[in-house]
Amino acid sequence: MSSGRCAACRYLRRRCTQDCILSPYFPSNNPQRFASVHRIYGASNVTKLLQRLPTHLRAEAADSLYFEAQCRLEDPVYGCVGLIFLLQQQIHSAESQLIKTQAEIAVMKSQTQHPQTQPFRAISGSNNLLLQQSDNDANLSFSNQVSSGFI
Amino acid sequence: MSSGRCAACRYLRRRCTQDCILSPYFPSNNPQRFASVHRIYGASNVTKLLQRLPTHLRAEAADSLYFEAQCRLEDPVYGCVGLIFLLQQQIHSAESQLIKTQAEIAVMKSQTQHPQTQPFRAISGSNNLLLQQSDNDANLSFSNQVSSGFI
Repeated sequence: MSSGRCAACRYLRRRCTQDCILSPYFPSNNPQRFASVHRIYGASNVTKLLQRLPTHLRAEAADSLYFEAQCRLEDPVYGCVGLIFLLQQQIHSAESQLIKTQAEIAVMKSQTQHPQTQPFRAISGSNNLLLQQSDNDANLSFSNQVSSGFI
Repeated sequence: MSSGRCAACRYLRRRCTQDCILSPYFPSNNPQRFASVHRIYGASNVTKLLQRLPTHLRAEAADSLYFEAQCRLEDPVYGCVGLIFLLQQQIHSAESQLIKTQAEIAVMKSQTQHPQTQPFRAISGSNNLLLQQSDNDANLSFSNQVSSGFI
């Protein structure tokens, strides 16, 4: 028997009124979604947060709260901040690789323009100093991009 | 006059006992840190989360909770999920650039090995099909990396 209550009201064992603020974002067919958010934030905090937002932004907010809640349940120590660290590492790795590749191109171009200096195959390993400098530049460009002084 | 209470107990207007679980992570000289975390999660949820963790992981957990709380206060709709989207875009951009650059190298290498086919300067814009394919590969490699089906 369906009571017609949303997942939140069902979880909280209360009547689900027509103006229930949680109802559109926590449908009865997905009880786990509200259970996760409730466990991390509590129903009162989620309600307050949604109430402060204009209606057209509430669905996105409920989605992002659910995402963060799931991350925190899976990783109680770091939550989705762990994901941010991981992405930062990936960016740094991709950036470093890009700078090395661009340096390789620069060397190849200079070789194409002045082919008499060295044979091509010997060049790719010969500019370690340039690559190290490029690595340092990559480090600088991505430092403090995310932490913003919070942690 | 200092009461010797931690920021949490001071905020909650209660005695701060020797075994206060919040005290090490919310010192009295940083009241805003607890206020942020309290506003998003509530004291009870933060306490429960820390209680479930071994002592040596609690400081990191408190830091990441504070980070997420600050993100949510600054961006009530997306919180730190907004940051994750931003980082994903940066990764995709760096990856695409890397693949294009690697394709450029491949063309230059083939030109160096067979210099009679085309002059160098004409080559860099001539492999659009290859670059488009590389872009698609980059899209594939990073799709679903973070969302993990939560949202």
